[in-house]
Amino acid sequence: MKKLLDDPKSVADDALEGMVLSCPSVLRRIPGKRIVLRRDGPVRGKVALVSGAGSGHEPAHVGYVGRGMLDAVAMGDVFSAPGAGDVLTAIRSADGGSGVLLVLPNYGGDVLNFGLAERQARGAGIPTEHVLVNDDVSIREKGKRRGVGAAILVEKIAGAKAERDVGGATLADVKAVAEAVVANAGSMGAALAPCVIPAVGRPTFTIGDDELELGIGIHGEAGVERVGMMTADAVSERLVGRIAEDLRLSRGDRVAVLAQGMGGTSNMEKFIFYRDVRRQLGSLGVVAAASYVGEYTASMEMAGVHLTLLRLNDELEELLGEPTEAPAWHAWS
Amino acid sequence: MKKLLDDPKSVADDALEGMVLSCPSVLRRIPGKRIVLRRDGPVRGKVALVSGAGSGHEPAHVGYVGRGMLDAVAMGDVFSAPGAGDVLTAIRSADGGSGVLLVLPNYGGDVLNFGLAERQARGAGIPTEHVLVNDDVSIREKGKRRGVGAAILVEKIAGAKAERDVGGATLADVKAVAEAVVANAGSMGAALAPCVIPAVGRPTFTIGDDELELGIGIHGEAGVERVGMMTADAVSERLVGRIAEDLRLSRGDRVAVLAQGMGGTSNMEKFIFYRDVRRQLGSLGVVAAASYVGEYTASMEMAGVHLTLLRLNDELEELLGEPTEAPAWHAWS
Repeated sequence: MKKLLDDPKSVADDALEGMVLSCPSVLRRIPGKRIVLRRDGPVRGKVALVSGAGSGHEPAHVGYVGRGMLDAVAMGDVFSAPGAGDVLTAIRSADGGSGVLLVLPNYGGDVLNFGLAERQARGAGIPTEHVLVNDDVSIREKGKRRGVGAAILVEKIAGAKAERDVGGATLADVKAVAEAVVANAGSMGAALAPCVIPAVGRPTFTIGDDELELGIGIHGEAGVERVGMMTADAVSERLVGRIAEDLRLSRGDRVAVLAQGMGGTSNMEKFIFYRDVRRQLGSLGVVAAASYVGEYTASMEMAGVHLTLLRLNDELEELLGEPTEAPAWHAWS
Repeated sequence: MKKLLDDPKSVADDALEGMVLSCPSVLRRIPGKRIVLRRDGPVRGKVALVSGAGSGHEPAHVGYVGRGMLDAVAMGDVFSAPGAGDVLTAIRSADGGSGVLLVLPNYGGDVLNFGLAERQARGAGIPTEHVLVNDDVSIREKGKRRGVGAAILVEKIAGAKAERDVGGATLADVKAVAEAVVANAGSMGAALAPCVIPAVGRPTFTIGDDELELGIGIHGEAGVERVGMMTADAVSERLVGRIAEDLRLSRGDRVAVLAQGMGGTSNMEKFIFYRDVRRQLGSLGVVAAASYVGEYTASMEMAGVHLTLLRLNDELEELLGEPTEAPAWHAWS
């Protein structure tokens, strides 16, 4: 393992400390905990959004805290769910009196711990709901699909819904728009190289120079299919094709495109991949109404790409375009 | 070489096409050329800023085109200077009648071709000046220092100077603030792994698992010193120490911090490195008034980090904080 770090056991804390330090006008950490809050929160009367996950996916989800997106996140150790107690603290800290929506990517540990915290919050009188994000179309069975790029789009769009109508938008309203995002989003990725969990010290899987993994997750896991190395254009054809089939995209549909690297991918490759995704969408007659190219839900230094498509309607497109102060939300990143 | 691309010979064009496609509201390409202009330009009466370089440094410099930063860029092939003819076309396209400032990182081919274009532009009646960016303090001799992160800060700060006072700020005013940035900026980097130029197909240098290169450039070149592998904290001590010495930073100075990966570095590592840089600055009593963590002048998929520090005064700090539409300028990226 060759990484620039200080202590393999404290990477989650060390990176989180750096993220918060870099953006003190927006982010505030609860001392001693991996819980990050928007500095100007809780916002009285606003439906609060809370998310979280294991670390290693930077900038997710700390970078999406801020006006217009999340109110709080609870982060776990590398690729490990945050504890239910921390999620509950995040909920309590974020609550502005109008309830809390949990944005919950579909992973076993997260579902368990967020579920516990949700019940405890309800028990304590905080109206709490969750939206389960499961956009990974490489897995056929919907209940088992992982949450990837769509989580970020949920945070952006539902966050905007809550922010622009404080006191008006109810928890049910915000949950409904979050569910509309999940229902219209699909994603799939491909990896050229694995990542190394610092405390483990060896690659999460092995792969040859002439091989490619299709249908990867973001926890260093291998994909659902191993194929021979392909061009960016062939990869984009596979990914766009599978997502378009799953979402039943048709000519004239407008989509948001989230084309991301997995952490160790050069920007040159990301933009070549994005160019090819646009060609594929163009051949289907699908319109790329908004595009985001960068890193959103990385898998440490994994090399590869991940594509999320979201079919837009007028409301989703408008909310997607609302401003946010979240440090990691950009046209490019 | 394992990269996601279509044709090793066309990567510069393919990536540039993707960049422009992803941000059509800001960027416009001159068809058939690697010249990118801000869509709403040229701006009548504004001093125009033009830059350029070889490709492979994405998002530099295409991502810094837009209101508040650059008016045009001319890009070369991978790690190769753009042709003088293209630079001249970029100058002509950007000129709004108040002259053009060339932001020119100090590399032989770029200096030659930008110099030719500058003379031709002057001959054609376009007042044209340049600022030579040479912030790399790993090289002792100032005339040989490479331009790295400071180029982006010049583009941001001089771009803001020109943009917020259209018709007022003269070419001499904009050049003066650009020179103030160069005079107060220093940078240095460290690499864990090299990159591969697609058309060449083999790593630009070799390095052992227990080795680190200090004082790297952004063209895949090895550093000025090879040392044993170090912690992020030890690397930040070396980089901050050398830059602080060169800039004669003293207690109470305010600096902008540009802490970047080199293209293949995980965000986790970048934020750990940034955390450590902040510790080092803190121990010197230097205030991090503004921080930018991400990728700014990458070297394709090289693994490593690069630090640029800029001593601020009131004017530089204010200009740095001005808004811009350039797609790659963010708090994080």
